[in-house]
Amino acid sequence: MPRYSTDHAGLEILPFEECLRLLASVPVGRVGFIADGELVILPVNHVVDGHDVAFRTAHGSKLAATEGQHLATFEADHYNEQAHSGWSVVVTGRAEVVEGEADVRRLTRRGLHPWVTAVRHPLWIRIRPTSVSGRQTPGTI
Amino acid sequence: MPRYSTDHAGLEILPFEECLRLLASVPVGRVGFIADGELVILPVNHVVDGHDVAFRTAHGSKLAATEGQHLATFEADHYNEQAHSGWSVVVTGRAEVVEGEADVRRLTRRGLHPWVTAVRHPLWIRIRPTSVSGRQTPGTI
Repeated sequence: MPRYSTDHAGLEILPFEECLRLLASVPVGRVGFIADGELVILPVNHVVDGHDVAFRTAHGSKLAATEGQHLATFEADHYNEQAHSGWSVVVTGRAEVVEGEADVRRLTRRGLHPWVTAVRHPLWIRIRPTSVSGRQTPGTI
Repeated sequence: MPRYSTDHAGLEILPFEECLRLLASVPVGRVGFIADGELVILPVNHVVDGHDVAFRTAHGSKLAATEGQHLATFEADHYNEQAHSGWSVVVTGRAEVVEGEADVRRLTRRGLHPWVTAVRHPLWIRIRPTSVSGRQTPGTI
């Protein structure tokens, strides 16, 4: 028996709190955004901060172009190749630079260690969700 | 010493053939596209067919909305959480339905077994790349 109700494709629909828990359980997700008329998808190290997803990037980087975009999307997933099972969570919302010092300190304390270290002048960007949705293959634990 | 030249962020820039090899080495990637004014990112099981990336979906599904989109993007990655290393490859191009019977047979023979099985009336979609790019953290094997 599936734990959650399923969609037309047979995937279980994950509740909001479970989406946030799963997002926070993996060290890497992917940011999708429009830059120079192209749809870009880039992996980032992220943290979940309340209902927001936050990541660090560099001033002037491609990712910094997400700032102010209402269409920014963040996706994280995890799968088990042997079991043919997995989940995926997608967050859509407005991307904005984290400006407040207290907010930056709180995010920095979360212990995010980006794997790419050559980032000068880092800045934090958060996606303020307008939607959070998640799916998993039936029986995923 | 990095094996490849690096970009401004210190990531190694992967050559085209290595991008295709890596794309084919993982069972799951993510399709990014615009649907109803939203940027959607959905995981799919995929195969690499020549220079194209192909996946199956259902007629009438959200993914089927990629058909004809010039902006479709496909991303695959793999990372090692302990080593803080990983790679990512992004393909951008036009998504089109695979119509030819011979093409469908060839793709079907590739042994793709989508993990979601409740797909009625499947169709194959391929992304014909206009760009293929890949990056990896220095020293990724």
